[in-house]
Amino acid sequence: QPSTRRIVCVTSGGTTVPLERNTVRFIDNFSTGNRGAALAERFLAEGYAVIFVHRAGSAFPFARRLLPPAVSPEEWLRSLGDAAATAERERATATFSACAPRLLALPFTAVSEYLALLREASCALAPAGARAMVCLAAAVSDFYVPDDALPEHKIQSAAGGGDTAADGSLTLQLQPVPKMLGAIKGLGGGGGAAWAPRAFVVSFKLETDSAILLSKAAGAIAKYGVDLVCANLLQTYKREVTVVT
Amino acid sequence: QPSTRRIVCVTSGGTTVPLERNTVRFIDNFSTGNRGAALAERFLAEGYAVIFVHRAGSAFPFARRLLPPAVSPEEWLRSLGDAAATAERERATATFSACAPRLLALPFTAVSEYLALLREASCALAPAGARAMVCLAAAVSDFYVPDDALPEHKIQSAAGGGDTAADGSLTLQLQPVPKMLGAIKGLGGGGGAAWAPRAFVVSFKLETDSAILLSKAAGAIAKYGVDLVCANLLQTYKREVTVVT
Repeated sequence: QPSTRRIVCVTSGGTTVPLERNTVRFIDNFSTGNRGAALAERFLAEGYAVIFVHRAGSAFPFARRLLPPAVSPEEWLRSLGDAAATAERERATATFSACAPRLLALPFTAVSEYLALLREASCALAPAGARAMVCLAAAVSDFYVPDDALPEHKIQSAAGGGDTAADGSLTLQLQPVPKMLGAIKGLGGGGGAAWAPRAFVVSFKLETDSAILLSKAAGAIAKYGVDLVCANLLQTYKREVTVVT
Repeated sequence: QPSTRRIVCVTSGGTTVPLERNTVRFIDNFSTGNRGAALAERFLAEGYAVIFVHRAGSAFPFARRLLPPAVSPEEWLRSLGDAAATAERERATATFSACAPRLLALPFTAVSEYLALLREASCALAPAGARAMVCLAAAVSDFYVPDDALPEHKIQSAAGGGDTAADGSLTLQLQPVPKMLGAIKGLGGGGGAAWAPRAFVVSFKLETDSAILLSKAAGAIAKYGVDLVCANLLQTYKREVTVVT
């Protein structure tokens, strides 16, 4: 008989934008990945299979409260001798081991890696039809330096030569990252065909200016066919969320 | 009698440059902090007192091989049930506890926090005279957006309004970060007086282009009074270093 298991792709953490081909400098997005890791934990507890597309090194299901930055490295080292902390780590290992057969963790760093993984994971969900969900908690870069405009080597300051103006200032020209959100339902981007047309799509919107938050959330629904948007302000995101459908 | 203990300030990890006052986006420098953490371990083993000025979340002395990114979070969770890994963690805790009274760990994230900590730590070393060392392994940003040019809110893409050009592109204007290296020996920057004039100063230079590496290392000695430069290429830095004095 066909599987009735529900499956979700959770994206989590921030993407980076390299500023040099041999990358020393990059633009990053603030995100601990804690929300995505918490969502993955909850979906696993509810019996879902989970594809966890996450920033390498960001918060991880069942480990997120036990590792830096949730604890400082000093606290972590001290806690290794602590009985209560040891018991908590044993519980985490047991829960993780029980869920591990339903968890596929795929790490990314640069936004280009994220977009490739999102496409592969979404297309892999398509056969599950309406049993599939895509939960886009990652903080995706809006601007990037296209590959053909990337300098080969580390950008040099004025003392080193070429890349800066006479006053030592540096100008970076960034282009908008192609929007792939619509491609999941076939509403633009990603080469035409829908990646997972029947999947339920949840996205998150983080702003720092409350005046534009809800209109931007509504825009994601109208433009990209998202089913539900969780709208957050950076200043209050840990205690307040507005759900827009 | 006066102390004969040697003392070193080790800086470690990369600094960030915020692109917005309510920071969602920032420029980061590639650095795991592994070299700085390894240096701190070695200095502690040699009997030094160590001020470890490090990027929050970067590699930490005695913990660096046991935590992500040295191991993946999945490996970490699995290893909690493993006897050999448990023994290794116990050794780390014991070594850390033995050294902890001589280790002061101070975390930074933004380059402005790093510069303030470097100044405070260097000035605190001054009374130790020639028993003091400053070992500058941190990857410090060369360019930043000065405070008065920082936008208040998250930069908006074209769909959202104001910050981008008509074609959706975004231009960032960055200024050189004030060079504070010379201030340690009183050779410019930092308000005039030397921070720690008799300290032995070690700096690191990372480039991706071998043609300019050694001349940049020699420049740091001539210009900032650095005593020793460890020169690295990004491509080979794990197995090769050139020491310039």
